[in-house]
Amino acid sequence: MKPIVYRNILRADAGAIEVLERCGVATVHEAQSRVGLMKPHMRPVWKSPAIAGSAVTVLTHPGDNWMLHVAVEQCQKGDILVVGLVSDCTDGLFGELLANSLVARGVKALVIDAGIRDSRPLEEMGFPVWSRAIHAQGSVKETLGAVNVPVVCAGALVNPGDVIVADSDGVVVVPRPRAQDVAAASAKREANEEGKRKQLASGVLGLDLYGMREALASKGLEYSDAVVDWYSGREGL
Amino acid sequence: MKPIVYRNILRADAGAIEVLERCGVATVHEAQSRVGLMKPHMRPVWKSPAIAGSAVTVLTHPGDNWMLHVAVEQCQKGDILVVGLVSDCTDGLFGELLANSLVARGVKALVIDAGIRDSRPLEEMGFPVWSRAIHAQGSVKETLGAVNVPVVCAGALVNPGDVIVADSDGVVVVPRPRAQDVAAASAKREANEEGKRKQLASGVLGLDLYGMREALASKGLEYSDAVVDWYSGREGL
Amino acid sequence: MKPIVYRNILRADAGAIEVLERCGVATVHEAQSRVGLMKPHMRPVWKSPAIAGSAVTVLTHPGDNWMLHVAVEQCQKGDILVVGLVSDCTDGLFGELLANSLVARGVKALVIDAGIRDSRPLEEMGFPVWSRAIHAQGSVKETLGAVNVPVVCAGALVNPGDVIVADSDGVVVVPRPRAQDVAAASAKREANEEGKRKQLASGVLGLDLYGMREALASKGLEYSDAVVDWYSGREGL
Amino acid sequence: MKPIVYRNILRADAGAIEVLERCGVATVHEAQSRVGLMKPHMRPVWKSPAIAGSAVTVLTHPGDNWMLHVAVEQCQKGDILVVGLVSDCTDGLFGELLANSLVARGVKALVIDAGIRDSRPLEEMGFPVWSRAIHAQGSVKETLGAVNVPVVCAGALVNPGDVIVADSDGVVVVPRPRAQDVAAASAKREANEEGKRKQLASGVLGLDLYGMREALASKGLEYSDAVVDWYSGREGL
Amino acid sequence: MKPIVYRNILRADAGAIEVLERCGVATVHEAQSRVGLMKPHMRPVWKSPAIAGSAVTVLTHPGDNWMLHVAVEQCQKGDILVVGLVSDCTDGLFGELLANSLVARGVKALVIDAGIRDSRPLEEMGFPVWSRAIHAQGSVKETLGAVNVPVVCAGALVNPGDVIVADSDGVVVVPRPRAQDVAAASAKREANEEGKRKQLASGVLGLDLYGMREALASKGLEYSDAVVDWYSGREGL
Amino acid sequence: MKPIVYRNILRADAGAIEVLERCGVATVHEAQSRVGLMKPHMRPVWKSPAIAGSAVTVLTHPGDNWMLHVAVEQCQKGDILVVGLVSDCTDGLFGELLANSLVARGVKALVIDAGIRDSRPLEEMGFPVWSRAIHAQGSVKETLGAVNVPVVCAGALVNPGDVIVADSDGVVVVPRPRAQDVAAASAKREANEEGKRKQLASGVLGLDLYGMREALASKGLEYSDAVVDWYSGREGL
Repeated sequence: MKPIVYRNILRADAGAIEVLERCGVATVHEAQSRVGLMKPHMRPVWKSPAIAGSAVTVLTHPGDNWMLHVAVEQCQKGDILVVGLVSDCTDGLFGELLANSLVARGVKALVIDAGIRDSRPLEEMGFPVWSRAIHAQGSVKETLGAVNVPVVCAGALVNPGDVIVADSDGVVVVPRPRAQDVAAASAKREANEEGKRKQLASGVLGLDLYGMREALASKGLEYSDAVVDWYSGREGL
Repeated sequence: MKPIVYRNILRADAGAIEVLERCGVATVHEAQSRVGLMKPHMRPVWKSPAIAGSAVTVLTHPGDNWMLHVAVEQCQKGDILVVGLVSDCTDGLFGELLANSLVARGVKALVIDAGIRDSRPLEEMGFPVWSRAIHAQGSVKETLGAVNVPVVCAGALVNPGDVIVADSDGVVVVPRPRAQDVAAASAKREANEEGKRKQLASGVLGLDLYGMREALASKGLEYSDAVVDWYSGREGL
Repeated sequence: MKPIVYRNILRADAGAIEVLERCGVATVHEAQSRVGLMKPHMRPVWKSPAIAGSAVTVLTHPGDNWMLHVAVEQCQKGDILVVGLVSDCTDGLFGELLANSLVARGVKALVIDAGIRDSRPLEEMGFPVWSRAIHAQGSVKETLGAVNVPVVCAGALVNPGDVIVADSDGVVVVPRPRAQDVAAASAKREANEEGKRKQLASGVLGLDLYGMREALASKGLEYSDAVVDWYSGREGL
Repeated sequence: MKPIVYRNILRADAGAIEVLERCGVATVHEAQSRVGLMKPHMRPVWKSPAIAGSAVTVLTHPGDNWMLHVAVEQCQKGDILVVGLVSDCTDGLFGELLANSLVARGVKALVIDAGIRDSRPLEEMGFPVWSRAIHAQGSVKETLGAVNVPVVCAGALVNPGDVIVADSDGVVVVPRPRAQDVAAASAKREANEEGKRKQLASGVLGLDLYGMREALASKGLEYSDAVVDWYSGREGL
Repeated sequence: MKPIVYRNILRADAGAIEVLERCGVATVHEAQSRVGLMKPHMRPVWKSPAIAGSAVTVLTHPGDNWMLHVAVEQCQKGDILVVGLVSDCTDGLFGELLANSLVARGVKALVIDAGIRDSRPLEEMGFPVWSRAIHAQGSVKETLGAVNVPVVCAGALVNPGDVIVADSDGVVVVPRPRAQDVAAASAKREANEEGKRKQLASGVLGLDLYGMREALASKGLEYSDAVVDWYSGREGL
Repeated sequence: MKPIVYRNILRADAGAIEVLERCGVATVHEAQSRVGLMKPHMRPVWKSPAIAGSAVTVLTHPGDNWMLHVAVEQCQKGDILVVGLVSDCTDGLFGELLANSLVARGVKALVIDAGIRDSRPLEEMGFPVWSRAIHAQGSVKETLGAVNVPVVCAGALVNPGDVIVADSDGVVVVPRPRAQDVAAASAKREANEEGKRKQLASGVLGLDLYGMREALASKGLEYSDAVVDWYSGREGL
């Protein structure tokens, strides 16, 4: 890749980010028609609250965290640092010292498709991290990458300034130009779900609430009152 | 598969279930001669207590959770919903709304060989789940499966009405017709282990407690008093 | 392998062990030039504190924990039991009963490249364990292995008496003859890091603290002030 | 499990087996409504032709191939030996010597959810094997298992006497009582596919051949004639 | 995602495609500065020759191949069909019948981040396929996806009309606007490599050919003439 | 690690190497009591014949192949280059150009716990390679490692000068000081197996040839003549 750092990026609307953070990953993912989700190997390092922010992106090499140091300088308050790699790697490319730098700049979280280390200090500092692995393996500072270019991170395309939403269910990417629409759709969906939750909790079946019975029948679902003893193969009592 | 829902199943003896729940997975697995254990990729979503109950089974397709909605209606108080898939999948086929439905019916837990989402609300609700993954990936409602037929879930055969025991060590299946025998064997084993635990904690060696020394010697185990410095290859001091 | 138990091993310097335990895995790994780290599949079973101790090693077979019983007798106060396997295995070769034996002898922790079970009781007892998996699968006692011979555990060579350091970031092995040097280097590194941490937390950039700017420039890193809208491909505002 | 060998099993209809072998895995799997397929980690060791035969089943332990020796005696001409394990294992539980024994008895193939070795001699002998891995790792003969009991092999339930069909696409299990029905459905499907194949090869679209256009439209599929340059975001030329 | 089919795409320069096909994946990947490579799980189903062509893209759901049927109609002679999925899946979404359709339209190959089946017929037809798995698992036709939209396939972003190059080393994506530049750089690199190959084959060392000795020395590489017996720890003879 | 190149190593006895090459991996592994085998992820890139030779070892970093260039100079006719990595990596650290260098020096093969590329040219040149992956991903030349120091490669410890034996079943390491003993034991085992092979091929059962019946009976193996219909649960006909 071309070794370049873009100093200026377009960030997403602050109001939209606030709504997306409140709604959380599952709701936002549904609200934007189920795209943009990172793979399930991305897990929170500790039980941090849901967060959302604009992505500052880094593309780096396995075993090398030099570009993370470069990227710190490009971060602003409220950003989320997103690190993609040119090939799979579980080395601990991030730890307590870099976290101190990010906290000093007001960065909200790190999302990295590699390993991290100093997992306990990260929790004690309250700095949220989503990663592929926890591994103490140290890294070199030898090879250039790029900052604020489009990256694929854990199977999802992230453009600089896209909104990253992360919580205990994983990480989803909202394209910057769609942030306000997706925020609105998420808020609507959330309100709608609250009503459903109450009905389901009161015992109303999803089959009835969503009106599924007819579709199931038309596809051919059969119901049987036979009592089968699967151990003897006998039907009936 | 034939798209069918069996409305009536034979459930296991309530007393046996109570004993099996108290004994936990490792003990029950040993007591039934080390069969019926699900693979180690099945992990608790949160640190829930050990549970046991009769299996209501679902067979479904990757990316599709329609049959989970169908299965809810077939569940009774104390049941455990067990979901097998026709092929490997980590999508989040289950979340908070379905959990509300299951709680409303008194279902004790979910065991699913796929992903789940809303992991934090599930913990807040106190609804125990064992799954292959946590992933926000949403699902469709398009393809029929079956309810209350035999399924293979995480490598273990589960017939409807079998007893599922799950705790922090994983998930084990007790065939319904064997439930009382296995419960009795588990209780006996547990009592027996308590005595062993005390002896071992007091410093008695397993080699002596289990009388292993003779068998080890007859197989040819040798003991050496040499002090080897593996870094120089020298023996002795 | 030859079925043999070495009763006497050379242990590492107690003072060095104490320092290594205080410094933790990431620091020790760096201080010994980034070698000796186990693979990232080795995870703590519960959130135990960092520990360090001399390795008593076991080489055993998949599905068989006989040699763990043999090894208990060779452990002394402060040791760490390290278990390597002749081939990959996730079976639960260790549980509460063996833990009681180890605690009775003052063993500080278990590091095993296989599964363990009784994960909850292990936490309640406060006995630290690092393992490849949590699985209730029981084991047989049929095949001889060896105790206190060199083993490869999770990709790292462990000689009997080497220092094992383990914390939430994983497990690292310090060769016994190097223990004092590595402890000194670790302590020095830790002191050095404390200063860096404060500077970074105050907002000094790693780029400046580590003097990276010149090297980055000489390798050809470019900076751009262009504002790219990656969605339209347009540069500038 | 109970250590037992069932000497007599019910085998499937020879005519059905012949048809199933000719139709191959993909067709048979579809013909029995897409159930009974083993997981994709089961791969042919060499490019053997498609085979089908009655299953003689073995349940064994990781690292132990004693029960394979026991099972040989229970095999008849035309059988397929199917080996399930109590937990995951890639050790080479089968090699050239056991293959000579099976060939001497007229066994058609081995299907094993573990590793095998002597892969080159197996190919030279022309003995077909489907396995999870190729690994030279030797095995012990210490622990009893069972022969001709139901086993779960690579995620599929296999009862003794079930028909195993295996080819370059994997392995599928046909329950013995359904063998003739599935054979008939497979043959019918195969004939039907031949016609479709010719039409598709001549350029007829599946959309038209299967009449999919209406269903696609009713679900909401849209077509656009816009020419999008995804690199500039511009539509149209 | 929005269920849409773009009928018209911009394709890459035919001359560039021809050069890229001749140069192969490793050379092209290097020539475009080591970006755009798919993950190593993408393997050729059979030993097909290197190919290159313009991508027709499909985004589909796990277990569902409906959109592949839709995509066939959008393919032209020389295209390569590229299939991305919304979540990981190894089901056999493609087989002989679809291959007949693609061959009828002159499509050169399939690249799919899922499983395929009918692997032997595909080889007999001479239709090249790169996939994540070979699995007979059949698929449904229930859920809409999209055709000719940007997709992430095996970790690489593919825009419709990008050039796909695939051979025994894997699959690389060349952005359409860069195709001619990358083709030129690839051809130049290939010519350059031929000279290096001859020199290296004649015994010239890479250390000298690439002039590495100085850089190695300046980074601190030491050479030692000591003869170490690593088994005794002794140096010298 | 210390960046050092040992120029002189002790190589194994040539006669022993010749015998070990003829016997192959499975036999040698058994003859040295089942230790020293690499993990099953190490696979031959093409169907090369069995080889054996003295190890020249390299320790390198993920994504960096600089030390392979350094190591070439240290190789002699008949050697096998063995590459271990400080952390897991599938990048293609080796290709056709390096292969030309190794062939020019008479090196017999490469064994690398990472990826390789140019898989087709490697086969055309007839240069045997065992690797973890095939991936075109290119590498940098930035970070020092070491040559001819002990390395862990795919889970096996390799000291410089150890004998590497590799064939279609994988890779095994024979410690240099044991080479002659293991060669003798391998040859003996091979002669012994030939007799067994003939007897087994003639229909003699392993149960009788190895005299297993008594041990099986004494452990409690039971035989049953019952004919069980596992689908109905009925015994007998």
